[in-house]
Amino acid sequence: MKKAIVLLSGGLDSATVLAKAKSDGYDTYTLGFDYGQRHASELNAAIKIAATYSSNPHKIVNLDLRAIGGSSLTSTELDVPDHGDYSENIPNTYVPARNTIFLSIALGYAETLGSFDIFIGANAVDYSGYPDCRPQFITEFERLANVATASVDTGEKYSIHAPLLHLTKAEIVTLGSTLNVDYSATVSCYKASLNGEACGNCDSCHLRAEGFKQAGIIDATRYKK
Amino acid sequence: MKKAIVLLSGGLDSATVLAKAKSDGYDTYTLGFDYGQRHASELNAAIKIAATYSSNPHKIVNLDLRAIGGSSLTSTELDVPDHGDYSENIPNTYVPARNTIFLSIALGYAETLGSFDIFIGANAVDYSGYPDCRPQFITEFERLANVATASVDTGEKYSIHAPLLHLTKAEIVTLGSTLNVDYSATVSCYKASLNGEACGNCDSCHLRAEGFKQAGIIDATRYKK
Repeated sequence: MKKAIVLLSGGLDSATVLAKAKSDGYDTYTLGFDYGQRHASELNAAIKIAATYSSNPHKIVNLDLRAIGGSSLTSTELDVPDHGDYSENIPNTYVPARNTIFLSIALGYAETLGSFDIFIGANAVDYSGYPDCRPQFITEFERLANVATASVDTGEKYSIHAPLLHLTKAEIVTLGSTLNVDYSATVSCYKASLNGEACGNCDSCHLRAEGFKQAGIIDATRYKK
Repeated sequence: MKKAIVLLSGGLDSATVLAKAKSDGYDTYTLGFDYGQRHASELNAAIKIAATYSSNPHKIVNLDLRAIGGSSLTSTELDVPDHGDYSENIPNTYVPARNTIFLSIALGYAETLGSFDIFIGANAVDYSGYPDCRPQFITEFERLANVATASVDTGEKYSIHAPLLHLTKAEIVTLGSTLNVDYSATVSCYKASLNGEACGNCDSCHLRAEGFKQAGIIDATRYKK
């Protein structure tokens, strides 16, 4: 079995990607980040989800992105806006260079494990407009990966798999459901409480709820009272 | 004055790059990493060096790369080899994807500060063969940077500056000396003691000593007794 690194936040998208990588026949090594995010309950969700797919340890890397700031997800000085309640193209929940950083660390982990396959749940259809979720970003990161490590001397090639890139949220939910993803264990909300209850108002809650609705599937998300 | 992010480890190369960025007229913001390196004394060196060039705070990001392993610089299970005492093209002091990871975080910091210039001390002449110190890596990272952040929508362009890329170690030392870099404050040794004393035997010590010798400049490095 080929090894694959799967970026697993504990959200809906990455849980679906993990199930996809598994059904594609990979031996999955999940990787998450304690980066100072507000919604730290996703870390516990990731541990639970990872354990249902592999006995390989779920790796959590500590990386304090609060040090560089710039996002309402990592700074208490900025508020997470409600869905639609912002005027910029890219809302302040964008964490500068987050996927670049996460994929870079995944690349280092892949090199250590001898894996050449990295899975990420980036999605460019029903999303918040983040630049590092777009197709050209994934393409360029793959190019970079293939000159960034020792494989440049051996000719082995990395693949960055983003199987959700061109799916709507409804299609993602449908795919995950056919793969028996337990969505009740996932946390999407940017302002989730520590026990995983969602606010129902942020962009991420909105996109999730719309996706389930359009897919005609019941969402077990627990909302704050 | 244009803002620039300068990756500053506390070693000879990055100190020279900082002096170069300053002499090029940039308002410098230095960034370093506490990544679980053996030679943590470089962190104190960086703080001292940074303070001589700018009153902007020297930022240290905590990032535990021991979690992904794979290098003698972050793992106590691997020994740092003496210079020439290894058979691979790339010695085990290589930290998988380190410069990719560091540049990614620098990119996030740059985006937060509104800077489009990032300086790194990568060098591909007198070096240990690390893939992420080669010209094509720098070129590809710059390409990635320009699709990875919000600038993709505004058309502003990032530049990754690697002014030492094609210099010999002797040329780097000569450049730094003309810029009055205080090399006595820098730490190069992979096995430096906490007070900054060098082993004199590792690749990094060897490259440094040869560089000063060829440049005809006295090196104030303090060696372990």
